[in-house]
Amino acid sequence: MVISGNGERAMTKKPLGIYPGGGSMVTDSLPNHLPLSPMDFLKRANRAYRNRVAVIDGDHQMTYGEFHDRAMALSGGLEDMGLKPGDCVAVLCPNSAAMLEVHYAIPAAGLVINAMNNRLDPGSIAYILDHSGAKMLMVHPILAGQISEILDQCAQKPILILMDWKDLDGGEIGQDLTYEALLARGENAPSFILHDELQPIAINYTSGTTGKPKGARYTHRGAFLNALGNALTLGLQPTSRYLWTLPLFHCNGWTHSWGVTAAGATHVCLPRIDAADIFARIADHHVTHMAGAPIVMSIMLNAPEQVRRSFSSRVFFYTGGAPAPAAVLSAMSNLGFDVMHAYGLTEVYGPSLACFVQDEWLELDFDERAEFTKRQGVPHVTAGDSRVINPETMEEVPWDGETMGEIMQRGNTIMEGYYNNQEATDVAFASGWFHTGDLAVMHPDGYIEVRDRAKDIIISGGENISSVEVENALYKHESVMAVAVVAKPDATWGEVPCAFVELKDGQQVSPEELMEFARGKLAGFKKPKEVIIGELPKTSTGKIQKFQLRARLT
Amino acid sequence: MVISGNGERAMTKKPLGIYPGGGSMVTDSLPNHLPLSPMDFLKRANRAYRNRVAVIDGDHQMTYGEFHDRAMALSGGLEDMGLKPGDCVAVLCPNSAAMLEVHYAIPAAGLVINAMNNRLDPGSIAYILDHSGAKMLMVHPILAGQISEILDQCAQKPILILMDWKDLDGGEIGQDLTYEALLARGENAPSFILHDELQPIAINYTSGTTGKPKGARYTHRGAFLNALGNALTLGLQPTSRYLWTLPLFHCNGWTHSWGVTAAGATHVCLPRIDAADIFARIADHHVTHMAGAPIVMSIMLNAPEQVRRSFSSRVFFYTGGAPAPAAVLSAMSNLGFDVMHAYGLTEVYGPSLACFVQDEWLELDFDERAEFTKRQGVPHVTAGDSRVINPETMEEVPWDGETMGEIMQRGNTIMEGYYNNQEATDVAFASGWFHTGDLAVMHPDGYIEVRDRAKDIIISGGENISSVEVENALYKHESVMAVAVVAKPDATWGEVPCAFVELKDGQQVSPEELMEFARGKLAGFKKPKEVIIGELPKTSTGKIQKFQLRARLT
Repeated sequence: MVISGNGERAMTKKPLGIYPGGGSMVTDSLPNHLPLSPMDFLKRANRAYRNRVAVIDGDHQMTYGEFHDRAMALSGGLEDMGLKPGDCVAVLCPNSAAMLEVHYAIPAAGLVINAMNNRLDPGSIAYILDHSGAKMLMVHPILAGQISEILDQCAQKPILILMDWKDLDGGEIGQDLTYEALLARGENAPSFILHDELQPIAINYTSGTTGKPKGARYTHRGAFLNALGNALTLGLQPTSRYLWTLPLFHCNGWTHSWGVTAAGATHVCLPRIDAADIFARIADHHVTHMAGAPIVMSIMLNAPEQVRRSFSSRVFFYTGGAPAPAAVLSAMSNLGFDVMHAYGLTEVYGPSLACFVQDEWLELDFDERAEFTKRQGVPHVTAGDSRVINPETMEEVPWDGETMGEIMQRGNTIMEGYYNNQEATDVAFASGWFHTGDLAVMHPDGYIEVRDRAKDIIISGGENISSVEVENALYKHESVMAVAVVAKPDATWGEVPCAFVELKDGQQVSPEELMEFARGKLAGFKKPKEVIIGELPKTSTGKIQKFQLRARLT
Repeated sequence: MVISGNGERAMTKKPLGIYPGGGSMVTDSLPNHLPLSPMDFLKRANRAYRNRVAVIDGDHQMTYGEFHDRAMALSGGLEDMGLKPGDCVAVLCPNSAAMLEVHYAIPAAGLVINAMNNRLDPGSIAYILDHSGAKMLMVHPILAGQISEILDQCAQKPILILMDWKDLDGGEIGQDLTYEALLARGENAPSFILHDELQPIAINYTSGTTGKPKGARYTHRGAFLNALGNALTLGLQPTSRYLWTLPLFHCNGWTHSWGVTAAGATHVCLPRIDAADIFARIADHHVTHMAGAPIVMSIMLNAPEQVRRSFSSRVFFYTGGAPAPAAVLSAMSNLGFDVMHAYGLTEVYGPSLACFVQDEWLELDFDERAEFTKRQGVPHVTAGDSRVINPETMEEVPWDGETMGEIMQRGNTIMEGYYNNQEATDVAFASGWFHTGDLAVMHPDGYIEVRDRAKDIIISGGENISSVEVENALYKHESVMAVAVVAKPDATWGEVPCAFVELKDGQQVSPEELMEFARGKLAGFKKPKEVIIGELPKTSTGKIQKFQLRARLT
């Protein structure tokens, strides 16, 4: 970083005012009320951390000054294209500097960002484009190959922008404009002024394993609050370096897209999950924080010795999805990572619960402690309330660690609703709570522990069997890499548990041995009645696709 | 901390729902909108950190569970006394567990807390009681002596509560009830439900050096946001321990009353500023953070060797008021403190600017670096915008580090207004900005540096002289403990600078020597024309009372 003689950081441009009034300092609006928006995080970072490295994307780096100036120019370009506040702009892009830029450029013009899962099939992407009413689609060159197939299935053709980041070969996609040309059109920052903090900032589609994807809409207020709450949970500071192992298309990166900037920390991009890339970035860029699905931990733990790199400081790893077994937590700890479990959904802006470590847990040995740290936890500081409620009676279940109910939540970081789907919204919001669809128990200490997805519970002879409990028993076997237990239709019992197991490289074990292994660990009726060994189908975010496994059994 | 066999933290009581609906889980209100309020921080801490030590007050400790339960019972007691939402409750109390409790108990019942400066004269306190319309006055026994004199001057007699914390001898003040009796009345938590986040939470009176004190009202929303913004600035975490060197009656402890709880950190009380007490608490309780006026640093630096204690980790010291000279920053650093300058006012909930350290400053030597670190800085993450504006033209001054203007601010952490004083509110909010009354320059890097209070500027022969600049020159003399420079009427020049100087213990230096010392450091017209040596009058928060010095010159 170059500094002038006396350490002064001269600005190339003054930051733009974050209030109505623009160039003039005289305004008609109140001095003491400002709509909450994560856009302010970048505007402030441009002033407070202008020379600090904001984004590292391979060999490319940007300071917060550059990040701000590019995002604002791009935003001005979007306005110049005739897009109007409330219009939706869809993006198909891996984790990259450009993907971070559009998380500011699009909402700063009052537009709604639709960051799509880029591993969905073309039909699903076309459905989402049409349903969200996307006026523009930005596509990164590495995803150019499937564009024609997507557009062929779209009822409405959006304006097409090729996100041709510098030295990448831009694939031709019949674009209307390139990203850099769009950016060049925006000489001025956008004229848009946010007046209502409840205006939508983003729309994120659910994975749609049980039907058509639904579009959860986020507000500027909710995104601002969730970003700050998570920044506090992670302990992000200006000196932090956050590695993007989590896809930015997943709940806008759990709102870390905005939270890392709020802290003035550095975003370290990662275009795809690869163990060697992850270790190299951690070591080379002194990464302090990362987040991701448990599959990321599996990949790191199973990485060959030669791609592992040592690093001096411990790394905070924030994980969601299925709870990691004690063995995984222990192995991660030995590798230098402090894992914290979180829980959330697309509908709640990513993580709403986090498993904050209690002092007394530290007195336990690792395996005992894992019984606590594997829980989903308690609400983070801006996430409002979260309870386990009997959905029939709407009574809270006893705090006994045994009685199952559904996790229900309330707070500012619950979606505005499903876009253009009032019926699904009404179901999700029945009785004034957001129904997560996840089954859980409430422990006496107020910590929530997920037992199952409502749709994943196995009902055998009238008894509920938690598929997670059966999975955890099998995860204790040293040869097991991944397990998914689903209900298999059974003439006698209604349903019985069937386990699909993926083994670690080079390991061999028979279905019978695994069934025997489970015997001492589970009640008789919970034991898997069948074990099937083979590779498991997974989503792009590493979630095992149980619906595919169920299909194999019917 | 006692834990049951398996590390479980059993709750004695379930935390209260933080949403409308109370005991019933079925509500009519929206699941995705909740009024922002720092009350939620304690309710959440009660769930997330129930067994963690919340408050250390001498030999007395409370967990977050105890803190929550006591505060809620007290709040229920306030309701039971017939107080109604919007009513004002005034408090005269040193930093203590009880003072923290009332910061939650009062607003949780919808009441407005008026935490009064307990070193004000009885007449001023009586004025504030009457002006704020306080329905109740809570008085700590150590302040009982002056109560009758205060009440004699009050037009409205409030209900009187004696805050008789456990083993303190309760002075008799003719109280209507004791604090513990009030708490005992509140078997149930308050029934109050916050529906509007813009409802007032607190009223804080300005020091009133230029007239009658004015009551700045804070909202729940503003307090929530400032507390979170400061928690991020300080990097507060659940493992942090915050020492209360800052009076809680000063902007509700710069909203750290709520921010420390938001982080789940531990409050370490300090009833009065005493070097031995400060060092003992830092060492004994592993303090990580503290805040206070520069006078606290002076007291620590000038503490005799035998009261100093060593401690292993560095302590973050957040300071406001006059910028500390480089020599003070250097000495504090050697003592184990990382000092960060902040800037704020009663009207802006305490600190709104903070001097975040830039990487490039670390390459400078200590004296050079101090030229940057002594600045007031840039807005913290929830503080909105802050500019230096010419109050005549309402044009922003050039970012040249030279042109003076007035600091003006906008954002959610600007007071609602002065209570019952629309005229002063309108003046303060003219043109849509809050006018701080402080004169400053804007540096090319966006950092604001205060030059003077508008009323402290000295105009000599038509030239503006910053009293701070003259003071800084004299602070460089090794014998000087404190300096205040004020305008002295002069027949020729209109005004000339006159310096009042307090020397360090055992030091001797003549006025002539100090005038000679200043010669090489200041332009001729800025040199003090008179130097007067002696003790300086200070407010209870350590601010030098220039108005008293001016009075001596007329």
